[in-house]
Amino acid sequence: MRLSDLSEQSQVSIATIKYYLREGLLPPGHLVNTTQADYDESHLRRLRLVRAMVQVGRIPVATVREVLTQVDDESLSRTIRLGAALWALPRPAEPEPEDPAVLAARREVDLTLARIGWNDAAEIGELSPIYRELITSVATLNRLGYPLDADDLTPYAEQMEQTAAHDLDRMERHTTPVEQVESAIVSAVLFEPVLLSLRRLAQEQEATRRFGL
Amino acid sequence: MRLSDLSEQSQVSIATIKYYLREGLLPPGHLVNTTQADYDESHLRRLRLVRAMVQVGRIPVATVREVLTQVDDESLSRTIRLGAALWALPRPAEPEPEDPAVLAARREVDLTLARIGWNDAAEIGELSPIYRELITSVATLNRLGYPLDADDLTPYAEQMEQTAAHDLDRMERHTTPVEQVESAIVSAVLFEPVLLSLRRLAQEQEATRRFGL
Repeated sequence: MRLSDLSEQSQVSIATIKYYLREGLLPPGHLVNTTQADYDESHLRRLRLVRAMVQVGRIPVATVREVLTQVDDESLSRTIRLGAALWALPRPAEPEPEDPAVLAARREVDLTLARIGWNDAAEIGELSPIYRELITSVATLNRLGYPLDADDLTPYAEQMEQTAAHDLDRMERHTTPVEQVESAIVSAVLFEPVLLSLRRLAQEQEATRRFGL
Repeated sequence: MRLSDLSEQSQVSIATIKYYLREGLLPPGHLVNTTQADYDESHLRRLRLVRAMVQVGRIPVATVREVLTQVDDESLSRTIRLGAALWALPRPAEPEPEDPAVLAARREVDLTLARIGWNDAAEIGELSPIYRELITSVATLNRLGYPLDADDLTPYAEQMEQTAAHDLDRMERHTTPVEQVESAIVSAVLFEPVLLSLRRLAQEQEATRRFGL
């Protein structure tokens, strides 16, 4: 398809598409002649992903480029590509290791991970920004006077394990590794508001069941 | 306790506490004499909640005041107080009813709610901002080219139902209705990052299980 068709199908303006092309967020089209390029479904898919990350996720263009480099690196395993792409997404500040709230958070997180058998996650924990992000979130609650211990965390971790199995099932519906990793990023950036709305709606439902209206 | 003790125990400065008192976010202490007031555990608890909402949730002071009015209104039922407090929290823009992406989202959300038996939620749906928030989130995905249907949503809704049961169990550990509603707000504002980190960590774990490292 031509640039104008790509713009129409994606609802992204031609000026924005040209900007993404210049910034290397979208691979160039296949040259048909010296002034015209042809675009295919992979361009449309990538354009949607870039727009989701930039416009909804508010992720800086430089970070988007970094994430896409990982997504496209076929020399890496699927797990590493997925991890690297998710790890490159913006996250809260690093926890201060000597802060007592952080030490308490780390102890309870490690206990939770050991209990539910995510031993590999705890072992590679020092490497994973997601592990550190979890510690930061729990430490913030500790510091504000709402401590969470392993008993609090374990049922939530078990439920997120079931949720992640669905996430991966959805991801595996896509045929190529690139599409799979792309869909995991969409899920991380865009699906979270859906999940949180469902949780609040379920809380309303459960409150009505327990206490009446 | 005195104002200085309240400041020390909460790690909130005296100037900030005085500002919260002036703005009506914190009830006045019990006057001991003309220049000195006494504060108790309920002040400390309320101060932590206000700080969590203002500093972490970045909720405007006027909204915090509105939420607290609902929390403290003993003439309302527990479910209504909980709902009113959660509903007053900031949320995305209202969905445009005639937008095709919104119509599609509403259809799939309603189908999901009917399937899992949240019929009351669908019935009071027009009233609940959380229902509209869910439709907005799903419509955003539709518009960006990542449509979600009832088959996609149902397993997530079922899992959030289990998560909400844990949320309410945690809430019911508190003895008074005010403390219960306060803890639900903390859970909505502060617990979400923990849940999302757990989901990402679970995704890593599940990816390693399926594809190796």
